[in-house]
Amino acid sequence: MVTFLPSRPGRLADVPSFDRAIGGAESNVACVLAAAGHRVRWVSRVGADGFGDHLVAAIAAHGVDTGHVARDPHRPTGVYFRTAGERATGADGEEPGTAEVVYYRAGSAASAMTPRSPGPAALAGARVLHLTGITAALSDSCLDVLRTLTRRTPGRPLVSFDVNYRVGLWQGRPQGPETLLDLARGADVVFVGEDEAAAAWDLHGPEAIRAALPEPGVLVVKQGSEGVTVLH
Amino acid sequence: MVTFLPSRPGRLADVPSFDRAIGGAESNVACVLAAAGHRVRWVSRVGADGFGDHLVAAIAAHGVDTGHVARDPHRPTGVYFRTAGERATGADGEEPGTAEVVYYRAGSAASAMTPRSPGPAALAGARVLHLTGITAALSDSCLDVLRTLTRRTPGRPLVSFDVNYRVGLWQGRPQGPETLLDLARGADVVFVGEDEAAAAWDLHGPEAIRAALPEPGVLVVKQGSEGVTVLH
Repeated sequence: MVTFLPSRPGRLADVPSFDRAIGGAESNVACVLAAAGHRVRWVSRVGADGFGDHLVAAIAAHGVDTGHVARDPHRPTGVYFRTAGERATGADGEEPGTAEVVYYRAGSAASAMTPRSPGPAALAGARVLHLTGITAALSDSCLDVLRTLTRRTPGRPLVSFDVNYRVGLWQGRPQGPETLLDLARGADVVFVGEDEAAAAWDLHGPEAIRAALPEPGVLVVKQGSEGVTVLH
Repeated sequence: MVTFLPSRPGRLADVPSFDRAIGGAESNVACVLAAAGHRVRWVSRVGADGFGDHLVAAIAAHGVDTGHVARDPHRPTGVYFRTAGERATGADGEEPGTAEVVYYRAGSAASAMTPRSPGPAALAGARVLHLTGITAALSDSCLDVLRTLTRRTPGRPLVSFDVNYRVGLWQGRPQGPETLLDLARGADVVFVGEDEAAAAWDLHGPEAIRAALPEPGVLVVKQGSEGVTVLH
């Protein structure tokens, strides 16, 4: 996914230009693992457009295998815009605001993934499969992909799942948090932010999260600047 | 709609930053008419996001009534990216290319318009109603809006229709050209580019276009630098 970042601080309504960057939870993980010397494949769908060309080339340049990235001639590459959270800061006594984010992922190439596409060849030989809740949010067919891949079937790869609850991606779909909990329970390694667990599930602290997520062999609760708590 | 234009020439895959501008065939017409001293209302839907804030404020600043622009809390403001057509130009003997365009309008706030929204109040008292084929391309419900508004009902305003055939907006829907011809036949004043008519309908020249579009009182065929041909 392509991310557009403001060229200067300010509200999204006021920023006159944006710089292109690479975003996407899964491709970030892929690039970091490739940099650490692992063999990594990024499986996704992007548009048959300039942004798709750029993403595939940039991620491949990190040493990631992009040979199973599908190109969609009818749907654009997913993009989003974000500010750095400067909104409503300043000398007028208002509370510092949160970042503004606008997603353009409904109808994107990635949103057209189905359990049959990517096919089994894309995952052949994988020892670890890393998934995130963002994919589940993109469309019903993408949710089917996640349901299929987090099913506890014999011989499947070790499934790593980052909950990545983004309220903006689940707008109008109140079942989002429950769906993410179901998916997390099917994984072997789960990553979740303490703040995400509070927002999505009203669960507070590593022990409460673990009680709701007993199945994964490893649960990693991310606690921002405090570090992480790992529960085995 | 917000348009993002490259900060420097080049392929979309290579351009590192983009400048925000206002786009949209209908809002352009509205701003120009307001500048000419007419009372103009722009009726649309934008997201409850910073881009929607910007669009409404910028178009209102041109003197256009934006009081009937709906804000959608669940869908983003439509945006698109375009280059200026520099692709494949240069010293290597290739043909000059066309502009690259990537639309983010599927699932946009505007795509959620229906014949009941905007309601009748938005059009009350209008003498002229200007529509374009772009709206028809956004979604099935937007096409329903256009079908409803181009129906020859008693007492309707004079309907002006700019065909605005954009092949990228009709991808995967082969009925696009035929749909646009139907809509144009319901209008009183039709604008169409000679190139659009050739691409959409395989009709060449003002007389051939007029033969296929006998109903509108006025047909304006746009011929680029050659000017226009007006058929009454």
